[in-house]
Amino acid sequence: MLHTPPASLLLLQLLNLTGIFVFAISGAMMGVRKGFDLFGVIVLAVVTAVSGGIMRDVLIGAIPPESIAHWHGVALAVIAGLLGFRSHRLIERLNHPVLFFDAAGLGVFAASGTQKALEFWLNPFMAAVLGMISGVGGGMVRDILAAQIPVVLRSEIYASAALIGALIVVVGAHFGLPPIETTLAGAGL
Amino acid sequence: MLHTPPASLLLLQLLNLTGIFVFAISGAMMGVRKGFDLFGVIVLAVVTAVSGGIMRDVLIGAIPPESIAHWHGVALAVIAGLLGFRSHRLIERLNHPVLFFDAAGLGVFAASGTQKALEFWLNPFMAAVLGMISGVGGGMVRDILAAQIPVVLRSEIYASAALIGALIVVVGAHFGLPPIETTLAGAGL
Amino acid sequence: MLHTPPASLLLLQLLNLTGIFVFAISGAMMGVRKGFDLFGVIVLAVVTAVSGGIMRDVLIGAIPPESIAHWHGVALAVIAGLLGFRSHRLIERLNHPVLFFDAAGLGVFAASGTQKALEFWLNPFMAAVLGMISGVGGGMVRDILAAQIPVVLRSEIYASAALIGALIVVVGAHFGLPPIETTLAGAGL
Repeated sequence: MLHTPPASLLLLQLLNLTGIFVFAISGAMMGVRKGFDLFGVIVLAVVTAVSGGIMRDVLIGAIPPESIAHWHGVALAVIAGLLGFRSHRLIERLNHPVLFFDAAGLGVFAASGTQKALEFWLNPFMAAVLGMISGVGGGMVRDILAAQIPVVLRSEIYASAALIGALIVVVGAHFGLPPIETTLAGAGL
Repeated sequence: MLHTPPASLLLLQLLNLTGIFVFAISGAMMGVRKGFDLFGVIVLAVVTAVSGGIMRDVLIGAIPPESIAHWHGVALAVIAGLLGFRSHRLIERLNHPVLFFDAAGLGVFAASGTQKALEFWLNPFMAAVLGMISGVGGGMVRDILAAQIPVVLRSEIYASAALIGALIVVVGAHFGLPPIETTLAGAGL
Repeated sequence: MLHTPPASLLLLQLLNLTGIFVFAISGAMMGVRKGFDLFGVIVLAVVTAVSGGIMRDVLIGAIPPESIAHWHGVALAVIAGLLGFRSHRLIERLNHPVLFFDAAGLGVFAASGTQKALEFWLNPFMAAVLGMISGVGGGMVRDILAAQIPVVLRSEIYASAALIGALIVVVGAHFGLPPIETTLAGAGL
């Protein structure tokens, strides 16, 4: 039995990239809605996608942050932003596309952020707080840049989802469960 | 004679918690005024309470920041936010409750932030700047999240108070005085 | 042959101070336009001038950031803010003074930020991203504090300039060129 089995590490990275992708789509949809041009949409997509994780990494001392040390996250977010700009008519057929992709990313990041904070020796309560920050940070920055009051402050369900997702992982870790199913539960909101 | 006598350290922590408490009330009152629900009010209270100190700690390299490493600050801010949400009618009988609690927290944080920056080898001028950042950071983030221009930019008296509070501590430290009386002077604005 | 010849190091510092000066003017002009008083104008000038560099330094792990460790940057920004407040009538005879000084600072910071990130072992693609963050960070924070959508999101030419400036330095570094001419090209937009 290893402490961090490679399979679970790979899964965490996969979840992180999933979160980055859906957050980037959410940022791109906000940019399109605000009438930004291609470059503005991509910048907003990237910033939305990486801000939560960067806040988490700076606060736990994992410097340089994952999204700065490796190029995969930013590159994926650029691609997702481009996709969002191109396909925004298709994506807007969904109800509340910004919120939908935001909620998906939030669940994934809240869970993976909590997991990472636990690995960085934080106590379970603060690890859950860090998970929340990871989950809501990107959307907060997106809304601030779009000159809106962040949705997390206006919608009770939204932030509760992040907290619940984070708590599930903490409880799961306490009982030695792998973070896989809990994270999927979080992503499903 | 010790370098950091335990009594003064305890006092610094007490002051920090006082600052967190009053900033959290200030954030909660802003949240109530903006019509946020319970969860939004508590999130805004916590963010207002811990942002200034987190900025200070990240900038001087005290990572993980105090409010992340220990749960006391966040827990206290949650309680203060809850209290602010419950008792907002009572608190609003004060004139300008957001500003009142903001000024109290600002004085306390400006002084304790300067003190901490001095302990982290910063020169007196930059320590005073760090003190100002600690003092005004939380209110700035609160106003940004509420989609307002930060009060610190609009009100000369406000930022001057932070600077004066910080300078008093620097001068006091230069002459070897303990930070107790200076901080109380700062808290009194 | 030295790795970092003193002459080029001096040039980098000179460029950084130039960037801080013009960004501070840009922040001061925004503050005057928003009707802030002297203190608000100076705070906005300083924050605009140092935010991009602080973000860069925190993200690459150069803590405490240059603008916190040394007092020169903040002092220069205070002077530039004072100058902007005093001479705003003169400066406003220029077309779009905020944008003009912003673009100048952006080019300088994008180039010097990329250079610094390369020295901190980042790969060329992420170094260019870090350069962009240095270049656009200050203006972003300025616009957020003034409750506006950041100009970088609304103007394609603007962010493209930062990216091109950063890429020139990366390519230049690859071929072993000093960053002098590339940075001047960036500053010329």
